[in-house]
Amino acid sequence: MRDTSYLAVDEQRLEANLAAMAAHADALGVALRPHAKTHKSLEVARRQLAHGAVGLTVATVAEAEIFAAGGCRDLFLAYPIWAEGPRADRLRALARIARLRVGADSVEGVRMLAAAVRAGRRGEAPASALEGAAPLAIAVEVDSGHHRSGLAPERAAEVAAAALDAGLAVDGVFTFPGHSYGVGAGAAAAADEARALAIARDALTAAGIPCPVVSGGSTPSAGAAEGGVLTELRPGVYVFGDAQQWELGTCVPDSIALTAHATVVSRRDGVVVVDAGSKALGADRPGWASGFGRVLEVPEARITALSEHHATIALPPGIAAPALGSRLRLVPNHVCSAVNLADELVVERDGVEVSTWPVSARGANT
Amino acid sequence: MRDTSYLAVDEQRLEANLAAMAAHADALGVALRPHAKTHKSLEVARRQLAHGAVGLTVATVAEAEIFAAGGCRDLFLAYPIWAEGPRADRLRALARIARLRVGADSVEGVRMLAAAVRAGRRGEAPASALEGAAPLAIAVEVDSGHHRSGLAPERAAEVAAAALDAGLAVDGVFTFPGHSYGVGAGAAAAADEARALAIARDALTAAGIPCPVVSGGSTPSAGAAEGGVLTELRPGVYVFGDAQQWELGTCVPDSIALTAHATVVSRRDGVVVVDAGSKALGADRPGWASGFGRVLEVPEARITALSEHHATIALPPGIAAPALGSRLRLVPNHVCSAVNLADELVVERDGVEVSTWPVSARGANT
Repeated sequence: MRDTSYLAVDEQRLEANLAAMAAHADALGVALRPHAKTHKSLEVARRQLAHGAVGLTVATVAEAEIFAAGGCRDLFLAYPIWAEGPRADRLRALARIARLRVGADSVEGVRMLAAAVRAGRRGEAPASALEGAAPLAIAVEVDSGHHRSGLAPERAAEVAAAALDAGLAVDGVFTFPGHSYGVGAGAAAAADEARALAIARDALTAAGIPCPVVSGGSTPSAGAAEGGVLTELRPGVYVFGDAQQWELGTCVPDSIALTAHATVVSRRDGVVVVDAGSKALGADRPGWASGFGRVLEVPEARITALSEHHATIALPPGIAAPALGSRLRLVPNHVCSAVNLADELVVERDGVEVSTWPVSARGANT
Repeated sequence: MRDTSYLAVDEQRLEANLAAMAAHADALGVALRPHAKTHKSLEVARRQLAHGAVGLTVATVAEAEIFAAGGCRDLFLAYPIWAEGPRADRLRALARIARLRVGADSVEGVRMLAAAVRAGRRGEAPASALEGAAPLAIAVEVDSGHHRSGLAPERAAEVAAAALDAGLAVDGVFTFPGHSYGVGAGAAAAADEARALAIARDALTAAGIPCPVVSGGSTPSAGAAEGGVLTELRPGVYVFGDAQQWELGTCVPDSIALTAHATVVSRRDGVVVVDAGSKALGADRPGWASGFGRVLEVPEARITALSEHHATIALPPGIAAPALGSRLRLVPNHVCSAVNLADELVVERDGVEVSTWPVSARGANT
């Protein structure tokens, strides 16, 4: 028996989720390049590649370094990297061991990237894994409705042209339709994504810039994605699922592959408190969510409050409160946040612990 | 130049905060037992003890283990520990190297604690640092209005009597007035705290059980705490301050001693995006907060959205958007969550890096 709280992975459910998304991408005729920020695990990454993923998506240079060192040599850093200071040297070193694509949404950003690559040209081996290949490729990030980073799709060619001028390669365009995170919002976000990416792709083509990669995808929008415009999908959360996906209807409880095991430590009428709080689950709580996570064994229950080491669970009338000392499996609202709080994932098969996997890229924020 | 994002501590502000709370406790005539969950740092703990703290408060057995190993031998585990499995052995081992007080809010919980202590009696050294002292002391947790763990104060003697019956020592009573986290709520929560603790103390006294320790305190209520009932304060956040305290009015921006350094990576009219998101700041966002954190240099700005590695910062009309590549210092909403995401704290004096301190108890969730 392990002391709670800890994160546990149901290996069979994980495998089923990996297979299902691989089949979905196959059916759409698009490449699958899953976002590794969700699991931060070399073991899960290897399984994704074994299921046919063309490479991985990452969010930070530090994540790229960890997955490249772990053997994944085709990486998309889907973030508008500002390549100054030590990060410039780190990018150059990375590009010597991996095929590297980096996001960009500004002319200044691509010039900084190009300067970073040039800074290493004299006396260093070329910043590319492949002799003769372009040293570093960019993909232009466009906004499809989430209004985070990314420029207007009509303007994608400005950044692509600046990249070519500065001596970088251009792979194509990408977006993150993060506004898919809302009840019933997935299909509309997928349509926005396709529209924005088509505009961006056409802008590049009109400027005479080839656009082989048209990359989109989030877990809530992936189900509604169409193969017509997209050439690549980048979902992340699908590997484990979480309470957000459960409440959005993009996963079912029986497919949730990661839970926080917790113990009932306090109990009163209709309420129990367990020993997994925001330092185990993360504090994510969108307005449309029913609470701070869910309880796998008691779908009627709601996590009504979350402290650092307490989850307060309200039980509806007629549902008996679990006894002190009972163990419950909590489903985090946002699994990416929960995984990033743990040093390791406890792997279970049929409820029996069979292994632990390190969260190798935990805290890789630079 | 370090790559962003990272957490930086202003050492002079930290020292001023430590001195101010120590003076406040002195003026009240109460002992200061700060909650180490905020900083998880042996260096900060040593400074708290040097400023006169009587010991530390911790939330988990794992935190207690780390601070005990680091030299702090007087610990209050202010949590209703369920002492089953490996945790029972760990508690026993801890009690041999530290003076240990453990929270309890149920008769079942104290019986489980007593069983854990007894299980080690044969063939083991006594579970106490001091020859002849009680092996383990409990403090009864009562609810003062936060409605998390803790039993009704009128019932405190039930748990205390059960502890004595089971062979444990009783230090007294405690509460966490977490409902102090609301605009203007600090003084009322402090009054609730004093009222609940007085009832609990009197209940013990009426049952013939001495109650030398009456422990309360949170950073927002500490300022309004009175010395009459309390014998001990347990604030945590005061060491660093954060955006919640700023917005509650319990700290001023000039006293905020921990920030996340971030770089502007994307920019449009009135909006910049920086490279510190919920994986650096934490996702805490109470309803009364103005956003997902604050920007130390630009108090007029608001963090309107937070992704894992993006903070979207809205600037009001008339405030120029910082240039791409600019560095900003973000103030997390809840500093305890931010610290628990970092492996180290970068220590600065007059804005110059002088050291790094490991976050020794990061992730110590068991």
